Amino acid sequence: MAGPLNAFVPDSNAHLAGTDDGPLSGLTFAAKDIFDIAGHVTGCGNPHWLATHGPAPANAWVVQQLVDAGASMVGKTITDELTRGIFGENMHYGTPVNPNAPGRVPGGSSSGSASAVAGHLVDFALGSDTGGSVRVPSSFCGLYGLRPTHGRIPLDGMLLQAPSFDTIGWFARDGETFARVGSIILPQGPATQRPQRLVIAEDAFELAEPATRAALEAVLATVRPLFTASSALRLSPVSLEEWSGHQQALQSREAWESARDWIDEVNPTFSFEVSDRYAMARSVTDEQIVIAQAGRDAVIARMNEVFDGGDVVVCLPTTVSPAPLIGQRVSERHTLRLRNSALTSIAGNTGRPQISLPLAEVDGLPVGLSLLGDYGADERLIELAQEITG
Amino acid sequence: MAGPLNAFVPDSNAHLAGTDDGPLSGLTFAAKDIFDIAGHVTGCGNPHWLATHGPAPANAWVVQQLVDAGASMVGKTITDELTRGIFGENMHYGTPVNPNAPGRVPGGSSSGSASAVAGHLVDFALGSDTGGSVRVPSSFCGLYGLRPTHGRIPLDGMLLQAPSFDTIGWFARDGETFARVGSIILPQGPATQRPQRLVIAEDAFELAEPATRAALEAVLATVRPLFTASSALRLSPVSLEEWSGHQQALQSREAWESARDWIDEVNPTFSFEVSDRYAMARSVTDEQIVIAQAGRDAVIARMNEVFDGGDVVVCLPTTVSPAPLIGQRVSERHTLRLRNSALTSIAGNTGRPQISLPLAEVDGLPVGLSLLGDYGADERLIELAQEITG
Repeated sequence: MAGPLNAFVPDSNAHLAGTDDGPLSGLTFAAKDIFDIAGHVTGCGNPHWLATHGPAPANAWVVQQLVDAGASMVGKTITDELTRGIFGENMHYGTPVNPNAPGRVPGGSSSGSASAVAGHLVDFALGSDTGGSVRVPSSFCGLYGLRPTHGRIPLDGMLLQAPSFDTIGWFARDGETFARVGSIILPQGPATQRPQRLVIAEDAFELAEPATRAALEAVLATVRPLFTASSALRLSPVSLEEWSGHQQALQSREAWESARDWIDEVNPTFSFEVSDRYAMARSVTDEQIVIAQAGRDAVIARMNEVFDGGDVVVCLPTTVSPAPLIGQRVSERHTLRLRNSALTSIAGNTGRPQISLPLAEVDGLPVGLSLLGDYGADERLIELAQEITG
Repeated sequence: MAGPLNAFVPDSNAHLAGTDDGPLSGLTFAAKDIFDIAGHVTGCGNPHWLATHGPAPANAWVVQQLVDAGASMVGKTITDELTRGIFGENMHYGTPVNPNAPGRVPGGSSSGSASAVAGHLVDFALGSDTGGSVRVPSSFCGLYGLRPTHGRIPLDGMLLQAPSFDTIGWFARDGETFARVGSIILPQGPATQRPQRLVIAEDAFELAEPATRAALEAVLATVRPLFTASSALRLSPVSLEEWSGHQQALQSREAWESARDWIDEVNPTFSFEVSDRYAMARSVTDEQIVIAQAGRDAVIARMNEVFDGGDVVVCLPTTVSPAPLIGQRVSERHTLRLRNSALTSIAGNTGRPQISLPLAEVDGLPVGLSLLGDYGADERLIELAQEITG
């Protein structure tokens, strides 16, 4: 069994005791089952992956940093299959419970990590974010969660899905714990200044469901005073959906290249939804890739304009709604995934950091407000989070 | 466990005692797990199908005929998932053993039925044949197997895959048992004459691997004398591969229509190979369907010419080779499936009956010779089989 909340990987006893006198001593954490733990097989949310791989030779870089700093790893958490998904319904291992939204998905693909933190089973947890896999469960479970600057945290010892988008992130229930973890796993970055200008992304707010939009806009009243200036503008001259399409194409191609040889050899069982995404990925043409790469370049150029001056932070909804109900139809979930991707792909396409803050509720269900920062400003986002919520 | 040879469905105790004084009394049989057995869930080779369906209210028509005639059903046999496959490697339940070709696939999708008969666990077994699912395992396991005239045997109580191609077939080790079963489950058909003219399908023989072609052509020396005339001709004015493409398109569309609602609701786990076929099926366009339907009409017209006069039987290889090794790559199996489909789709597209006979071996591995008959001439094919092998 996967233990309380169905958050943990079944039949794994992986754990690592932290040192006694480190800055994180006394804290417990869980790691998404895509991070290597020496001597254990990294299962990646799929029984065939588990059965066709051997034990990891070493701990993932990020795990080792945390243990060396005193945190104790108490378990591996369930992930969407090979990180393909943002809702957390794993058809092999079940759906981790969302303690803050009963009957609803926890979000994915870092589903078990978000569940374990929200359910007070651990103090914090590691996830990964390629297309939203930390930010979405943060929003749905009411947690702090960061997608860092792309390339900032070394990915050694972690399953890669789509390398030009892959990042490591983490979850916590409070800003202080969140910041303590960041101080350990964020390597020294460039000097950055505290953002003074708040930009409200109008086109992003328009994508949210009306009640979610209203709840998040109400929070802006407490966020604006922390900045010397605030303004509203549209990020995309075309549409955020079109921007998202570029990530869909590029991420799909990279994901297929990452997995194709293993899939061809093993013929693994996936949920239909996951296989379907790989099958569609395989059909992306080289011409579509060229178009998407040019489109991604245009997104980057436009967002460089928005961030011109360097002291900007962009505010947007993390997700279009609170967590949906468990067990929706594949076709409904597909539509909802694309709607959320229009929000999550802004950071994805550009590689900028984005933090989701548990600041709002709709009918008692959590939904996150996000701050998108400039390259390397991960620590500034974490500090802003503490200013806003502390 | 699936019992001896991994032929039987695990955790099923479905069995039906035959009457004591019927024409089949004393014979045992097994039924592919797509035939309803009253009070048991029909699993169709997929655990999610099993979990999302209730017990069958009644026995399938064909099963009831056999039991009423005295045969005893002793178990349900493993099938490729939802009958999608011709090799028999089920990623959920494993691969039934091919007793006559160790280390090689039994053929599918009626894999467990062929395995159980070839391994002497039962006297005969029921399968189904949409794209080759009785003929291919007959060839690979060295058995008698018939795909009957389309529409001849009622499909009530059986999983439908692609209704314009679906048929019920059966396996036996000897011609006499094979004929006894046919006398029970083939409803009265039109009067037909014993074929006197043998047509050797040159383009079909050319598709077989050289050693298989040589082994099957050697058998023709014993087949030809049973006919008053024999000739060789090319069946297709274009190519058998192009003919097969029409069945691929039409069968795919029908299979997707049969399964789409359940897939959308349940998000079942399939092997990647099976999901991929459904994903590709969904992408078949209406324009492709129109072209395929016209192509199928042309196949039917051409084969009506070949059978003009009514006393013809067409001889062709059942498969392009003996059973391939277990565990080939998905992409290799895909290629090999299409090569075999060029042979099996002649009966599929036209709805004509085809019997596979265990008449040849290549390096000790069985491979079948097929006789393709005119509409309703199923009994004549069975009689010819006994003439040839008796």
